[in-house]
Amino acid sequence: MSVTAAQGFTAAGIAAGIKENGNPDLALVVNTGPRRAAAGVFTSNRVKAAPVLWSEQVLKGGEVSAVVLNSGGANACTGPKGFQDTHATAEKAAEVLEGHSAGEIAVASTGLIGVLLPMDKLLPGIERAAAELSPHGGEKAAIAIKTTDSVHKTAVVTQGGWTVGGMAKGAGMLAPGLATMLVVLTTDADLDAATLDKALRDATRQTFDRVDSDGCMSTNDTVLLLASGASQLAPSYAEFAEAVRTVCDDLARQLIGDAEGASKDIRIEVINAASEDDAVEVGRSIARNNLLKCAIHGEDPNWGRVLSAIGTTKAAFDPDRLNVAINDVWVCKNGSFGEDRDLVDMRYREVRITADLAAGDCEPVVIWANDLTADYVHENSAYSS
Amino acid sequence: MSVTAAQGFTAAGIAAGIKENGNPDLALVVNTGPRRAAAGVFTSNRVKAAPVLWSEQVLKGGEVSAVVLNSGGANACTGPKGFQDTHATAEKAAEVLEGHSAGEIAVASTGLIGVLLPMDKLLPGIERAAAELSPHGGEKAAIAIKTTDSVHKTAVVTQGGWTVGGMAKGAGMLAPGLATMLVVLTTDADLDAATLDKALRDATRQTFDRVDSDGCMSTNDTVLLLASGASQLAPSYAEFAEAVRTVCDDLARQLIGDAEGASKDIRIEVINAASEDDAVEVGRSIARNNLLKCAIHGEDPNWGRVLSAIGTTKAAFDPDRLNVAINDVWVCKNGSFGEDRDLVDMRYREVRITADLAAGDCEPVVIWANDLTADYVHENSAYSS
Repeated sequence: MSVTAAQGFTAAGIAAGIKENGNPDLALVVNTGPRRAAAGVFTSNRVKAAPVLWSEQVLKGGEVSAVVLNSGGANACTGPKGFQDTHATAEKAAEVLEGHSAGEIAVASTGLIGVLLPMDKLLPGIERAAAELSPHGGEKAAIAIKTTDSVHKTAVVTQGGWTVGGMAKGAGMLAPGLATMLVVLTTDADLDAATLDKALRDATRQTFDRVDSDGCMSTNDTVLLLASGASQLAPSYAEFAEAVRTVCDDLARQLIGDAEGASKDIRIEVINAASEDDAVEVGRSIARNNLLKCAIHGEDPNWGRVLSAIGTTKAAFDPDRLNVAINDVWVCKNGSFGEDRDLVDMRYREVRITADLAAGDCEPVVIWANDLTADYVHENSAYSS
Repeated sequence: MSVTAAQGFTAAGIAAGIKENGNPDLALVVNTGPRRAAAGVFTSNRVKAAPVLWSEQVLKGGEVSAVVLNSGGANACTGPKGFQDTHATAEKAAEVLEGHSAGEIAVASTGLIGVLLPMDKLLPGIERAAAELSPHGGEKAAIAIKTTDSVHKTAVVTQGGWTVGGMAKGAGMLAPGLATMLVVLTTDADLDAATLDKALRDATRQTFDRVDSDGCMSTNDTVLLLASGASQLAPSYAEFAEAVRTVCDDLARQLIGDAEGASKDIRIEVINAASEDDAVEVGRSIARNNLLKCAIHGEDPNWGRVLSAIGTTKAAFDPDRLNVAINDVWVCKNGSFGEDRDLVDMRYREVRITADLAAGDCEPVVIWANDLTADYVHENSAYSS
């Protein structure tokens, strides 16, 4: 499954010794063709890790033949030496994989910022991982990219003879926990780089861009889509884009479900906005409100904090016409108290907040978030020490 | 001290029964003249509490003769009835205070959003508070406006025969915790409303606008400056503005020092920005980064999180020229690791972060923030229940 569910891919995941605890920390995903088309989206943080800077250049060529991913170190804020290390990683992979050139090898890293990678362990690790490459290696690869993830994350959609599969790691959003969300998607559909790029951007805009664990944007976020063409089938754009979106949605939902320290998954739906941009802005503002996230943790249907989050946005709305439901109970009507808040049952992990802006007829937009807990504080106050 | 340090003011603070625990919850500040000039700044949240909507109108006249403040309820998101209650509060104060009209009485409320105030307790309370008005009542007034504050906050500057004094409540920034920063400043300087307004805006821009406890913007924030003219002295604008700024700075610093659950006060100084706006944007972005706030709590000099916060801004900078010091140790130089992070001593409550954008010669800008703790989560997950 995972990145090897589609034909034309091999993968491996090993413990190279990058992590001091000896857990798996190096993954390799190889496109065995016949095609090597690829697309990628990267963090919009202006402080970008070395592997992001490298892979952005690789993707400009529209072809990726292999991806080297490591956990145990983000290789971000590591200066010229860090970039040299990423370059050496791609060169090493090109050397051990036959018929590959470094310029077609993407690199992704995750872990602590500001620390150089132990190249004396990483480079021999690439050799060992290459020796273990297998068409069944997807799960091992997914395990090797975990950092604070409690479980590895994979998803697959198969239809009419072609497949889209993928793996993800991360404790949150396209701007998550530490340094980061990494996703590799593969397909055996026979499509060109431009089609992959459009499908990937459409999908991430509605999935990974709409989860928010803690409002913090990473230096390393990377989402890659590789196509081998091995099925020799070329689905329509609509079919393919839908499959990519479904896999991304599944993985994004898994990221939120495993967000650092979270005890609640919060589904925020913004309805009747004047525009999609308004709806996304309002959804994100609600998703990032620490006070609300604490209230949800305490199973307190504190709709006042939802209103005060909406009030900080530039979206079109009249404060006296706002309505808010928590788990389908309309606790706020026309900007004031509505149904009895004691009717809201918040015992379950999933909490649904509906914000009705009463300002237009935009289709509903959903943003996923999670609560803010003492466990989040503990996990993130002790990470590097 | 407090709001009665300046001549020409009386104040009172009583327990009116608005808070169920019987703590003081109603304050009255009265300007006994001869002048009644005033200025105010209010929350920029578009969801504004009834007392904010009311007081904004009062301030348009440039005169305030009295302020009624209550804790125990924010009167925010309470619809037309909430606004009627604020109006009735001002009317009642005008009735019990001789020679006052409701249109010159400001109202400020703080506490839970979305709940109507118990007017059957508040209105009789105004009568009782009026009976206790005293030129020494400032401290009692400061105590009566507390919510989650652990201490009451006052500050005074006296020079050359005139005084600026004030009181504040709040668990954070001009956009803090609950629903909620209230500040009343008084002076016996003989100045007109336009001068007060300019001095107040200049001061708040550099003080209350530059503290950030949790990134959450309140529906009720109110800062008022009342002048009695009782000293019969008219200081120069520069002298007066400096005194107002000093009092605001003192109160703002007290707010951060008492922020909900905080164990560290974080002084963020942004240097060598291309503009003041850039410096403020970068400082706020650092101040609001949950991951960094957790790291500081854990006494972890995690400069990577500072860089990733800077990277989310639109400020002018080159990622490879950024420098960051924590408690004066330059742990990040030229966007990469610098001095040994083990040299950073973080045992004390105050933590200093210096972000050098190396992009211009703007004067340093200081933003105050605090760490994110399990206590913050506990306090805010249990507040309304």
